Amino acid sequence: MEEKAMQEILGKAEVLIEALPYIQRFNRKIIVVKYGGSAMIDEELKRQVIQDVTLLKLVGFKPIIVHGGGKEISKWVGKVGMEPVFVNGLRKTDEATMEIAEMVLGKVNKSLVQMVEQLGVNAIGISGKDGGLLKVEKKYSNGEDIGFVGEIKEVNPKILYDLLEKDFLPIVCPIGLDDNFATYNINADDAACAIARAMQAEKLAFLTDIEGVYKDPDDKTSLISELPIEEARELILGGNIGGGMLPKLNNCIDAIENGVSRVHILDGRIAHCLLLEIFTNKGIGTAILGEKESKYYHE
Amino acid sequence: MEEKAMQEILGKAEVLIEALPYIQRFNRKIIVVKYGGSAMIDEELKRQVIQDVTLLKLVGFKPIIVHGGGKEISKWVGKVGMEPVFVNGLRKTDEATMEIAEMVLGKVNKSLVQMVEQLGVNAIGISGKDGGLLKVEKKYSNGEDIGFVGEIKEVNPKILYDLLEKDFLPIVCPIGLDDNFATYNINADDAACAIARAMQAEKLAFLTDIEGVYKDPDDKTSLISELPIEEARELILGGNIGGGMLPKLNNCIDAIENGVSRVHILDGRIAHCLLLEIFTNKGIGTAILGEKESKYYHE
Amino acid sequence: MEEKAMQEILGKAEVLIEALPYIQRFNRKIIVVKYGGSAMIDEELKRQVIQDVTLLKLVGFKPIIVHGGGKEISKWVGKVGMEPVFVNGLRKTDEATMEIAEMVLGKVNKSLVQMVEQLGVNAIGISGKDGGLLKVEKKYSNGEDIGFVGEIKEVNPKILYDLLEKDFLPIVCPIGLDDNFATYNINADDAACAIARAMQAEKLAFLTDIEGVYKDPDDKTSLISELPIEEARELILGGNIGGGMLPKLNNCIDAIENGVSRVHILDGRIAHCLLLEIFTNKGIGTAILGEKESKYYHE
Amino acid sequence: MEEKAMQEILGKAEVLIEALPYIQRFNRKIIVVKYGGSAMIDEELKRQVIQDVTLLKLVGFKPIIVHGGGKEISKWVGKVGMEPVFVNGLRKTDEATMEIAEMVLGKVNKSLVQMVEQLGVNAIGISGKDGGLLKVEKKYSNGEDIGFVGEIKEVNPKILYDLLEKDFLPIVCPIGLDDNFATYNINADDAACAIARAMQAEKLAFLTDIEGVYKDPDDKTSLISELPIEEARELILGGNIGGGMLPKLNNCIDAIENGVSRVHILDGRIAHCLLLEIFTNKGIGTAILGEKESKYYHE
Amino acid sequence: MEEKAMQEILGKAEVLIEALPYIQRFNRKIIVVKYGGSAMIDEELKRQVIQDVTLLKLVGFKPIIVHGGGKEISKWVGKVGMEPVFVNGLRKTDEATMEIAEMVLGKVNKSLVQMVEQLGVNAIGISGKDGGLLKVEKKYSNGEDIGFVGEIKEVNPKILYDLLEKDFLPIVCPIGLDDNFATYNINADDAACAIARAMQAEKLAFLTDIEGVYKDPDDKTSLISELPIEEARELILGGNIGGGMLPKLNNCIDAIENGVSRVHILDGRIAHCLLLEIFTNKGIGTAILGEKESKYYHE
Amino acid sequence: MEEKAMQEILGKAEVLIEALPYIQRFNRKIIVVKYGGSAMIDEELKRQVIQDVTLLKLVGFKPIIVHGGGKEISKWVGKVGMEPVFVNGLRKTDEATMEIAEMVLGKVNKSLVQMVEQLGVNAIGISGKDGGLLKVEKKYSNGEDIGFVGEIKEVNPKILYDLLEKDFLPIVCPIGLDDNFATYNINADDAACAIARAMQAEKLAFLTDIEGVYKDPDDKTSLISELPIEEARELILGGNIGGGMLPKLNNCIDAIENGVSRVHILDGRIAHCLLLEIFTNKGIGTAILGEKESKYYHE
Repeated sequence: MEEKAMQEILGKAEVLIEALPYIQRFNRKIIVVKYGGSAMIDEELKRQVIQDVTLLKLVGFKPIIVHGGGKEISKWVGKVGMEPVFVNGLRKTDEATMEIAEMVLGKVNKSLVQMVEQLGVNAIGISGKDGGLLKVEKKYSNGEDIGFVGEIKEVNPKILYDLLEKDFLPIVCPIGLDDNFATYNINADDAACAIARAMQAEKLAFLTDIEGVYKDPDDKTSLISELPIEEARELILGGNIGGGMLPKLNNCIDAIENGVSRVHILDGRIAHCLLLEIFTNKGIGTAILGEKESKYYHE
Repeated sequence: MEEKAMQEILGKAEVLIEALPYIQRFNRKIIVVKYGGSAMIDEELKRQVIQDVTLLKLVGFKPIIVHGGGKEISKWVGKVGMEPVFVNGLRKTDEATMEIAEMVLGKVNKSLVQMVEQLGVNAIGISGKDGGLLKVEKKYSNGEDIGFVGEIKEVNPKILYDLLEKDFLPIVCPIGLDDNFATYNINADDAACAIARAMQAEKLAFLTDIEGVYKDPDDKTSLISELPIEEARELILGGNIGGGMLPKLNNCIDAIENGVSRVHILDGRIAHCLLLEIFTNKGIGTAILGEKESKYYHE
Repeated sequence: MEEKAMQEILGKAEVLIEALPYIQRFNRKIIVVKYGGSAMIDEELKRQVIQDVTLLKLVGFKPIIVHGGGKEISKWVGKVGMEPVFVNGLRKTDEATMEIAEMVLGKVNKSLVQMVEQLGVNAIGISGKDGGLLKVEKKYSNGEDIGFVGEIKEVNPKILYDLLEKDFLPIVCPIGLDDNFATYNINADDAACAIARAMQAEKLAFLTDIEGVYKDPDDKTSLISELPIEEARELILGGNIGGGMLPKLNNCIDAIENGVSRVHILDGRIAHCLLLEIFTNKGIGTAILGEKESKYYHE
Repeated sequence: MEEKAMQEILGKAEVLIEALPYIQRFNRKIIVVKYGGSAMIDEELKRQVIQDVTLLKLVGFKPIIVHGGGKEISKWVGKVGMEPVFVNGLRKTDEATMEIAEMVLGKVNKSLVQMVEQLGVNAIGISGKDGGLLKVEKKYSNGEDIGFVGEIKEVNPKILYDLLEKDFLPIVCPIGLDDNFATYNINADDAACAIARAMQAEKLAFLTDIEGVYKDPDDKTSLISELPIEEARELILGGNIGGGMLPKLNNCIDAIENGVSRVHILDGRIAHCLLLEIFTNKGIGTAILGEKESKYYHE
Repeated sequence: MEEKAMQEILGKAEVLIEALPYIQRFNRKIIVVKYGGSAMIDEELKRQVIQDVTLLKLVGFKPIIVHGGGKEISKWVGKVGMEPVFVNGLRKTDEATMEIAEMVLGKVNKSLVQMVEQLGVNAIGISGKDGGLLKVEKKYSNGEDIGFVGEIKEVNPKILYDLLEKDFLPIVCPIGLDDNFATYNINADDAACAIARAMQAEKLAFLTDIEGVYKDPDDKTSLISELPIEEARELILGGNIGGGMLPKLNNCIDAIENGVSRVHILDGRIAHCLLLEIFTNKGIGTAILGEKESKYYHE
Repeated sequence: MEEKAMQEILGKAEVLIEALPYIQRFNRKIIVVKYGGSAMIDEELKRQVIQDVTLLKLVGFKPIIVHGGGKEISKWVGKVGMEPVFVNGLRKTDEATMEIAEMVLGKVNKSLVQMVEQLGVNAIGISGKDGGLLKVEKKYSNGEDIGFVGEIKEVNPKILYDLLEKDFLPIVCPIGLDDNFATYNINADDAACAIARAMQAEKLAFLTDIEGVYKDPDDKTSLISELPIEEARELILGGNIGGGMLPKLNNCIDAIENGVSRVHILDGRIAHCLLLEIFTNKGIGTAILGEKESKYYHE
């Protein structure tokens, strides 16, 4: 019997030597998940995303969720009898709107905490104000003042290190303070990217409502499964990247250039897209890779 | 010169021996502050309360703030065109009201975080959902269903120990989950009391809009400065405690009976009331004391 | 070869998704084991219990042992020429008896530490005095003064969180201090229950000398494998619960009502009863379940 | 007003520069106190010793108490009708005696915990079994087997680092395990010395029933206030050190040679001897100093 | 006597309220000290700098030292018979030179550790390789390849948070790895600035061989004591900043713009310049301030 | 499906019970690896050793690397035009030689850090100066002064506990300070042995350039696979141990006698020798065992 157990452990050792490159990708690696789009509205998808992130935590990753709350904010702006105003696609955010945006994001934040706690994992919901996480400065839209819309200037990641060390799953809503400690709304993609950079995350995954990046946006069969960063830059220069995708892809490139190993653009409408991308070698969206990374991965 | 420095240190040693009983009251002791009433509305008082709590942290205490948001909630319920309903003084909380209450409390919570951060101390704002801090069960008002109003059933203080160890000032808003992970509103006094018990806090301080407890509610000169717990029980039995004060005093007695050393009912309308009560030996409100405590303190 | 390793990991991922509900039950969950009865006397059973608890720790649980020392105390009371006195089943505990009880419990405590250390796991033996863990008040037996027998008033769980974080297996003997810092003896079942509540343990397991709870105490085939809390209450009301079991079952109900997910009454005379109950889906004693829990577990 | 405060802080800065060498002696330095003799019997002295150690902790030291229990053990050996046997001054410790010794030391241990807790500081009482702290081997007395008397072979200080980091005051009773995990009694002086070495303590203080070391044991005016290690060795070679003092002085020399900065032999019969020695520059016992230390200290 | 002690504590409380803004500047604030120039060569100055930094740590700051090793590197390059080559003021660093540079910086690093340890404070010397602290990319000098000279691309501050939490004084030498894990030399000013940014340090202090910034470099009486960031920018645009100072001032501006509160350019040739700047309100060099900071500080 | 998952977990439980003795050997056990010889020169072997140690960390061990740098030091001594001098096999180390030795060891140290970081695991390179890890005293060679060659007097393991707790792989170079804080070179075998003792390591492994210990040094078929400590002592007394092996074997015996469970003498020229020895039951070098260990291991 002891002999048998020993044989098993010995076998395990062999597998381990082979598996070393894969194990390294799991072991206490930080993975930032930008959670938004349909996967945030459909109740079944929501449940699956939270299940996936929780599972990533249970198998050894250190996930951090960053979420937005777009449609909910407009809904509540309407509820109190105000009219949402957009300037070049950015929400004009006066003080009253900012107040509502913060309230709605806070509510969404705690509802995600609730779902993670229900799965038996300790979560904590914070905003960029807590522990001075996100410092911003005012953002202008082509020179126009659009109110309390902030651009991230600095990230103080200490609070996230502390919460990860104490074994929490941190859930972050994208609100920050400027130098005068006024409250600003931040684009959730930008927040996820800035946090991934500051934490030197292994991975940054965007849950979106598209399949991924296409070589030719008009040809749905041209989905790119792996996109080395230099090719991503060329695609942008070639003008082949459509409106909504452009800032997202720029964020991806920025993250890769600043120390994040891989960025994933995932189709949040596919069940368990996060687990499938991470645990299978086909992937189901587009992975943006650093120059070195692209040589040895996924083959 | 060295001689001089040594003399000073020697002198310090003597003072220390004498001061031991006082030092013990400061050293890493947990102090829960229930923050509410006028001190939460007047901007100048607000600033002072936050300054006081921050200072308590800087001199060695471990403060935790628990806050309500009463009037703000009613304001927002009105803003979306609903009518606040109260049953026996408790807000009837249907799902829509609960949603607003959570949003408002979240907003207040982060505004306090902001003020503490501005003073150079790391704060973190949580609700009873985070880390499973507050578990509740439905509360009925004389048998009537008043919706999502919860009574605290269990406190899981782990998250607070973790945050204190990492040197944050935790700010808690009184929302919790029931066994089905539904969201409930909780009375802030009850939440402060339950947290003080679970953390075995040294002190629990209520910032209120009254001077303290009176021997005779009609005689403003009869303010009681120190109230041993057995006398507090007699006062209640004697029917001398008025409406608003009764549940508060019951909370105080409950806290003392369950391991909190001292409970303070402070007049939040007085500037720096918190510092004055803790650092001076007259006190400025009513201190409820355990039986042993009353023998040697404040004399 | 890499392909093969990848396939294995992929397969692992699939198993993980399926296994999520089970994994959640293991992952850093706190399990309080009340250790007593025959399993504490028979040397072979003793070895097995300690082996089981140690294994639970090695696979990811965070176990805490709470133990009594009943028969050993009487033996030593006799050794020094005193006569054990019992009032309504409670040991009358004068100062001399209390001194001996503390000495014996301390000895038992360290002998368990020794056995765990021998298995290569770090243990630490504490009593309710250490870190102010257990605060008690005097307990009367139908109004009669029975000496230093304490009822738990408060639990300060900080010391246990600290020891678990530092990766120790804590072993607790049920002694506490009252407000005057006098030493009291505590019923070990009560101590286990109070600690499980204060730590919001996932599980509380009592090692006993019975098979479990019977529907009909006279019919040994009526052993109940799963007992929802409401049925437990009915059994008690129906008068079907015998003498020794009654306080234990009340403790179980109290634990469930206060945040412990499951309580197990195990037959400590069966080898490896602890492992069998936790890792098999039949169970070998009676599991008391909360209302929600009973719907989906063990099927 | 701000000007005034600034002046004070500036003044403080100057004092600090001068005081640097003194501050360094306090700041988180480990100080091991061997507690025994009269100071352990007289209730008033006992209270003062515990007060002193607690105060040392509150001003920044990290004290560890190691205690014996000599006379109490003999008392209890007698109580159960056995006869204490001594061989060359060492207690012959058969299995029954060892059992009693462990029980008595455990009781003394927890009574000290109790006193420290009463002063508002968190204490934890451990033996050398906990966390594998003390590993021993059998000690023979001139070749004669004297039972379970152990000589320390190894110290695993991890448990003490963990407890100090979590801000406990550790109180250690001198019991250890041999390679077969059998229980052994250890001389408390030896245990204190071994722990001070393994922790690289700043100070080791022995509370004794003598004034200190004399140049001439027959001349009470020849008390030595500072004894450089080389002079201590000469005194021993010169045969001027009496029976009880010899092993103690050897322990002191051993500690100094192995990284402890200063060892104090204090007269435990003097009130607050510990504070007086540490905070005054005269000292009240004998301080054994390393070679370098002796050049610049106490002048 | 108790009355007296209480009065003292009361007085202390008053001072504390006044002192709050100053205390906030000390309390666990991170201060990065770039150590270089004469203060690194003159043995007496060296001793004083290390004394000052150690004292800052003892009074509550969390200092980090970043050092260069310029002249020592050239000396050793010469010793092995090579010729130092400079291109536009940057050392041309081929593989052999890089090897020597790393060896020399390592030696300097450990000699500083040694001096701090000698003062009784725990230090740890690391390079940018440890814990992946500094990631670089190749730097070109006007397009010319100058070898292994790196520009910092990313900072992973986790190792510094870990070491500060464990109470070490970290001493960093400016060496980093590129994406291919090749070794690069980094300008020490740049490294100090990047670390101060990533840690969101309260202060960044450069020890230099000049008095500070002059309004008119030719007029030694025009030393600027406080320089708001916008004026610093104007000075640069006005062409009034000389050669060596220009990159340093750009570093200062960069730090302020990225979350460091104050940057000090100190004259390292003045004894205790660090303490004088921090504890006195005149200052002795030039302090670069953020826009808000400049309004209320130093008056 | 759930049924299937449960069966798997149940099966796992059975395996776990059987595997307990093996699991205990992995779980957070400290393993000190003395890295030297050919395995430090051949690039392919180097890569494999670092891979093995990294893997040991990923499966749960806590490895510490201690390395020398012998041949590199001589090379650099030569480079600067000095002549290496050896006295009885020990390098005569004047101040200039010591300076070079420290520089070379520092360079080797960081190159190992680099390789571990490249495998995705956090490493930190320290010397015995950091955190006061190694305190030495001057070593004489048959009475002759050979300069800055140190013998370890004390180990302060706190820094290693801190780094392990923060999940770093510590890499130590054998340099220490004496009481006057002067720098000394230490034999790497001695340093590894002293660290293994102070940390009470589970294992100490020497990578050497020999196959292991032979019964008869002239008979290559007489390799001893397991060598109980008493037989090791006999071999030495019998004069059968050759020159280079003698001090190594004495180190092994010293380690075993002081709390290290097993010491391995491995042939560093064999690929993955470390993994093979630990995970297979034949072993590939000589394992020195304590008396008890030898009875039940490897059969």
